[in-house]
Amino acid sequence: MKTYEVPLVPGPVSVPVKFREAYMTDFGSSDLEKDFYELLKENQDLLREILKTKNSVTIQSGEAMLVLWGALKSTVCPKDKVLALSNGLFGHGLGEMAESVGAEVRYLEAEDGRFIDKDILQRELDSFRPDVVTAVHCETPSGLLNPIGEVAPMIKESGALFCVDFVASAGGADVRVDEWGIDLGLLGSQKCLSLLPDLSVLTVSDRAWKAAERAGYAGYDAVLPWRDAEKKMEMPCTHNWHANAAMNLSLKSLLEEGLENSFRRHSETASYCRSRITSMGLELYAKEESIASPTVTAVKIPSGWTWPKLDAALREHGMAVGGSYGSLAGKVFRIGHMGSQADMGLVRKGMDILEKVLNE
Amino acid sequence: MKTYEVPLVPGPVSVPVKFREAYMTDFGSSDLEKDFYELLKENQDLLREILKTKNSVTIQSGEAMLVLWGALKSTVCPKDKVLALSNGLFGHGLGEMAESVGAEVRYLEAEDGRFIDKDILQRELDSFRPDVVTAVHCETPSGLLNPIGEVAPMIKESGALFCVDFVASAGGADVRVDEWGIDLGLLGSQKCLSLLPDLSVLTVSDRAWKAAERAGYAGYDAVLPWRDAEKKMEMPCTHNWHANAAMNLSLKSLLEEGLENSFRRHSETASYCRSRITSMGLELYAKEESIASPTVTAVKIPSGWTWPKLDAALREHGMAVGGSYGSLAGKVFRIGHMGSQADMGLVRKGMDILEKVLNE
Repeated sequence: MKTYEVPLVPGPVSVPVKFREAYMTDFGSSDLEKDFYELLKENQDLLREILKTKNSVTIQSGEAMLVLWGALKSTVCPKDKVLALSNGLFGHGLGEMAESVGAEVRYLEAEDGRFIDKDILQRELDSFRPDVVTAVHCETPSGLLNPIGEVAPMIKESGALFCVDFVASAGGADVRVDEWGIDLGLLGSQKCLSLLPDLSVLTVSDRAWKAAERAGYAGYDAVLPWRDAEKKMEMPCTHNWHANAAMNLSLKSLLEEGLENSFRRHSETASYCRSRITSMGLELYAKEESIASPTVTAVKIPSGWTWPKLDAALREHGMAVGGSYGSLAGKVFRIGHMGSQADMGLVRKGMDILEKVLNE
Repeated sequence: MKTYEVPLVPGPVSVPVKFREAYMTDFGSSDLEKDFYELLKENQDLLREILKTKNSVTIQSGEAMLVLWGALKSTVCPKDKVLALSNGLFGHGLGEMAESVGAEVRYLEAEDGRFIDKDILQRELDSFRPDVVTAVHCETPSGLLNPIGEVAPMIKESGALFCVDFVASAGGADVRVDEWGIDLGLLGSQKCLSLLPDLSVLTVSDRAWKAAERAGYAGYDAVLPWRDAEKKMEMPCTHNWHANAAMNLSLKSLLEEGLENSFRRHSETASYCRSRITSMGLELYAKEESIASPTVTAVKIPSGWTWPKLDAALREHGMAVGGSYGSLAGKVFRIGHMGSQADMGLVRKGMDILEKVLNE
């Protein structure tokens, strides 16, 4: 297997050995042991602290797509109106997922490299009157961090349920579930928590639980069966003790560092990355500094290069980064400086390699 | 955390350190690396050999309930007729899951500790004319191994899709997907493969793919997006490289031992367990030896004992076993001798402890 000395892929990130070591314990049956339920409840408390919420927190077994599907299927009924805020692949994707549930979906698309205009958003809220608004905090394929806090009051005012994907931001950028009125908040393990892609997390407000009761959806991705699972000591599936033990180490490590310190580390690494990028004469995808994500930087492929050619050249020098998907495929490449990879030494090495490759 | 010297829980089983060590590698991004796709394809080939099939094999990220939901939701449309063969909690549960999809479900229940009568099955097939028949190979909560091979020709003859849960048997008992005409075969990682509960496996026949095309179901548990995922090198979610690496070690280890040798090891351990049980004057739940599972033994709670009292006494002596669920809760306890726990020394220790506890 090939490994790269400078892994700067925008997730799944490099997992520190101190978290992976949790997998070396031979845990008992998560179905039967009280110890496991104590661990789960502790992880829920730690996540509530990190996500700044008093809401319920479910921790489910599977990759983050599990809670993306689960949040929508559990609360959206056919013919419900969903307004999907989109400035990238995931923002649009949430709308498509809602369509597959039978919802009437309106897409509100931003211009390239920008977020939705507030006046347009207000107009849509007033005229369309959505039951649910979906948004993505960090739009990973385009390297944007959307100002959710700024539009949150308008969405709260509208009365719609607010469903926000903060998979690639939480832990590395400020996420305020309660203050922003997020009813369904989505998180995966393999980004800023520096874990394997084996757990997904959903915050659920009381209003969202009511919506889930109304929808009555059943399935592997259904949220309702998780509501009282710990109290009843009966999980909807056999849970992953090892993954929860690793998550416990990661959450504690993040709180030991301090949330503000982690945000600063991410933001400083990202600023450094972007300043090196622009000084190389490359162009950022984000139109404004304020919307560039502290966890991932999207850069336009330089002229004279194609993505496969650039990828191969960087790999030859021991560096792995990401391309992009959808309409940005072949147009931007992405540097992931999130979680364990939000490390100034690592990003400096990466920028030195990129510079060398471009000058060769 | 409490650990038990004699773990005889009917899954998740004790995971050998040689498999857990796969989690210590810092793999790259499963989204981007060809190495990962090679590993996935190798695992699929190994699984085909173990399950005796030429069908497609999907390996998905999540616990076995994922493929139980996924197989049904992906192929059963509302108003389809589903015949659920049941002699335990999971057999009945598959029917309930099909009901939640909107299917018309008929349950064919066996008498306590037995499998379905063949004449009755034939009558139901002729009169109900199901689109799908569901069955469970190893009914874990009741410790029964159902004679799927014997009823398979009748189901094939009926033209129904055949969906079989062999989560707790495959690897420890013979499973013949092609010979038995299994269209959808369900497997989890944490039973006879001795892995964490982080992956689930589904075998899909050409007829099942056609049914999936007709149903057009989308979701985290949808099967269709996995059909050409390796070819396109585009997974429906970020996959779990570590878990696949561990699965690779387990599958190779099973084939190195030899399937027949593994079946013999399971069968001999189970026979020994049952002979010790009956010589203690305890009663097996299985009515006949031929239907007792080689992977798990269900025993009636002895008179004078309750499940919590027996559980506590065994744990005090360093042994963990399982209770049961549904109608068998509090009535039987279960000894899991599957995968790494199908070990004569371990089961002997367990039986010595049980004997001691009962005689105290």
